[in-house]
Amino acid sequence: MKAEILCVGTEILLGDIVNTNAAFLSRELAKMGINVYRQTVVGDNANRLKASLRDALDKNDIVITSGGLGPTYDDLTKETAAALFGLELKLDEASKETIENFLKMTHRKITPTLMKQAYLPDGSYALKNDCGTAPGVYLEKNGKVLVMLPGPPRELQPMFLNYAEPKLMKLTEKTMVSHMVHIFDIGESTVETQLREMMTTMTNPTVAPYAKDGEVTVRVTAFADSETAAEAMIKPVIDEIQTIIGNKHIYGIDVPNLQTALVQKLKACGKKIATAESLTGGLISKRITEVSGSSEVFECGICSYSNRIKNKVLGVPQETLDKYTEYSAETAAAMAEGVRRLSGAAIGISTTGIAGPGGGTDEKPVGLVYVGISTEHKSDARELHLSRGFGDERELIRYLASSHALYLALDELKDQFGQ
Amino acid sequence: MKAEILCVGTEILLGDIVNTNAAFLSRELAKMGINVYRQTVVGDNANRLKASLRDALDKNDIVITSGGLGPTYDDLTKETAAALFGLELKLDEASKETIENFLKMTHRKITPTLMKQAYLPDGSYALKNDCGTAPGVYLEKNGKVLVMLPGPPRELQPMFLNYAEPKLMKLTEKTMVSHMVHIFDIGESTVETQLREMMTTMTNPTVAPYAKDGEVTVRVTAFADSETAAEAMIKPVIDEIQTIIGNKHIYGIDVPNLQTALVQKLKACGKKIATAESLTGGLISKRITEVSGSSEVFECGICSYSNRIKNKVLGVPQETLDKYTEYSAETAAAMAEGVRRLSGAAIGISTTGIAGPGGGTDEKPVGLVYVGISTEHKSDARELHLSRGFGDERELIRYLASSHALYLALDELKDQFGQ
Repeated sequence: MKAEILCVGTEILLGDIVNTNAAFLSRELAKMGINVYRQTVVGDNANRLKASLRDALDKNDIVITSGGLGPTYDDLTKETAAALFGLELKLDEASKETIENFLKMTHRKITPTLMKQAYLPDGSYALKNDCGTAPGVYLEKNGKVLVMLPGPPRELQPMFLNYAEPKLMKLTEKTMVSHMVHIFDIGESTVETQLREMMTTMTNPTVAPYAKDGEVTVRVTAFADSETAAEAMIKPVIDEIQTIIGNKHIYGIDVPNLQTALVQKLKACGKKIATAESLTGGLISKRITEVSGSSEVFECGICSYSNRIKNKVLGVPQETLDKYTEYSAETAAAMAEGVRRLSGAAIGISTTGIAGPGGGTDEKPVGLVYVGISTEHKSDARELHLSRGFGDERELIRYLASSHALYLALDELKDQFGQ
Repeated sequence: MKAEILCVGTEILLGDIVNTNAAFLSRELAKMGINVYRQTVVGDNANRLKASLRDALDKNDIVITSGGLGPTYDDLTKETAAALFGLELKLDEASKETIENFLKMTHRKITPTLMKQAYLPDGSYALKNDCGTAPGVYLEKNGKVLVMLPGPPRELQPMFLNYAEPKLMKLTEKTMVSHMVHIFDIGESTVETQLREMMTTMTNPTVAPYAKDGEVTVRVTAFADSETAAEAMIKPVIDEIQTIIGNKHIYGIDVPNLQTALVQKLKACGKKIATAESLTGGLISKRITEVSGSSEVFECGICSYSNRIKNKVLGVPQETLDKYTEYSAETAAAMAEGVRRLSGAAIGISTTGIAGPGGGTDEKPVGLVYVGISTEHKSDARELHLSRGFGDERELIRYLASSHALYLALDELKDQFGQ
């Protein structure tokens, strides 16, 4: 089945917001085996919206729109769709009630303008909005399916997952199952070389790697008559990927990110971690505490952004700082050890280095990073070169450094406690 | 002048990457007064790319593409464009040399596949790629302008700004100038109400507010024959906005974000800041250290994620924690004071509260946040309620809390040292 995503909103055309809705919807549709052939963005303009909607419906089985369902005069999506299909807008009692309740709850007045949101194309099905006032619309007519969703991602995402996706699932005959193999510390080209045969010869399941923010994710997707059958097709493929890539570099399957994998592993091992950050400035502790429930395994992070604090709070010896400078494996190891002792955690991790744009020298260039780790058995550091040599790399270098520190801790736990 | 942005890449249609190129290009074109009427995304498919490119060129004066300029067989943008305009691809010597140098520099071999990138439509103009191997293309033909840029944002952005924009600027007759007024701690609807008259009556300059991540930005844009004339039109409008909104709530004009405004202000005042974070887990120190040169004003951040560390490292009295709990104004104030004393900074800021999804009670619900501030004169805290009542709000609550802490420090500096 072919689909198009049509996003409506002048703010997207002005570049004021990044169109994350298109990415979210594309990903979800891909999971269902619905192929998105085009994403389009148009402004809040009746004529151009109409032309784009007609074109999208002509060329596709399914069209998903986002935006233009609100109460103001320039919210036109429902009106335009109704006109295209020759349908009237009718008051939907359930939506009316939801809107009334929502307004009451948030102490706002019920106005006719706001009630405009409860009018839906005749014969369509209201998609409940658990996070706002504008209901979505599911409309099946003339062999086409049109799903209209609100613009704010916080409203669109739960509405799609809870109410639109179950209806769309019924349209597809096969079940699709995807699993993601998350890989760190190997480059994309190496992964591609190692998996080339699988990637090029297999058609179901398919194997597709992609790289982002210094990580490689391999998506394995199977279509089958049932979920069980799809899972059975995927399992040997993932086993083979694990054999080829090696479990050392696979930090998780279907985990959202490195920090979640690390928090899960720490919980499983009953260990705590502490962070000492210079270069990353709090990014590692921020990423760890992103994970709900991380307080079980994380108590203390020190951002020591000067040598004085490295010495005073973390106890990095002044001689180490003087002899090796703050950009050294010795300092990184001492920072990790310092925060481990200070906090009483089992593992301490640290970062120090030069994120740029200023501060680099020939000897210690921008991108030179030391990631430290300390346990009761050892205090160590790894030297990394994270510059790609162009552009403003400060945030990228910091992010990659934080990922390496998280990975180092995870790897250590695997060494100590098994996979 | 009308423009369309056409992004090419199956990875966008699969939702594997968010299309930030479209937002970047839209923003830059808007600044030049070029109206983007549509953004389109198609996959790496010759027929669909051709149809979309033809349609975009039919309906617009300018078409900007991103993606599909690389060396592999599914990079088709240049080939498709050349075919549409009836042009041959010819070797561009300068691009050939650039590619050779780039490959040498990165110790890679020169292959015919890679050299494919140096072939451009006859009569077109090569846009230099300072961050990769694929040059861009600027083609003016049959009254249309087609600009083809590479897909990776790190290559596209500098190429557009340095090489494409100057050529496009020559097409527009007027000069456009925009300034951004950055507002915090007032809701979007309040700002809209206060500025409604300006927004609805003015046409040049225009006044347009938009809200993002708990902040409101008002964009003031003027078109004129010269930059000086545009600036002169904008100045009284910004003055008026400052009068209406009040300087307390305007944290900067044309500053990238709160953390940059704060670091600039700290530098101007010659003061240092330190952070003590519970709820935000390092996000504040991460945001401060995002700003290049922040080491002048920031030395020490403590992420005290447990009461034990709040007491042991920050010196929050055990009685305070016992009597008021960690979610209290008293604890926030003591944390801020603790980190100020520990670090020797002039200002300490802190956060504590409940980010959810777990941990909330009727008395202390998710979203209850205390932001603390300490100077030599006082240690204080502000209570905030940051939950909107639906969805997974953890990251939003943490982000808003970090913004409030940064704003509180900035406000304090303004009180002490003037605007």
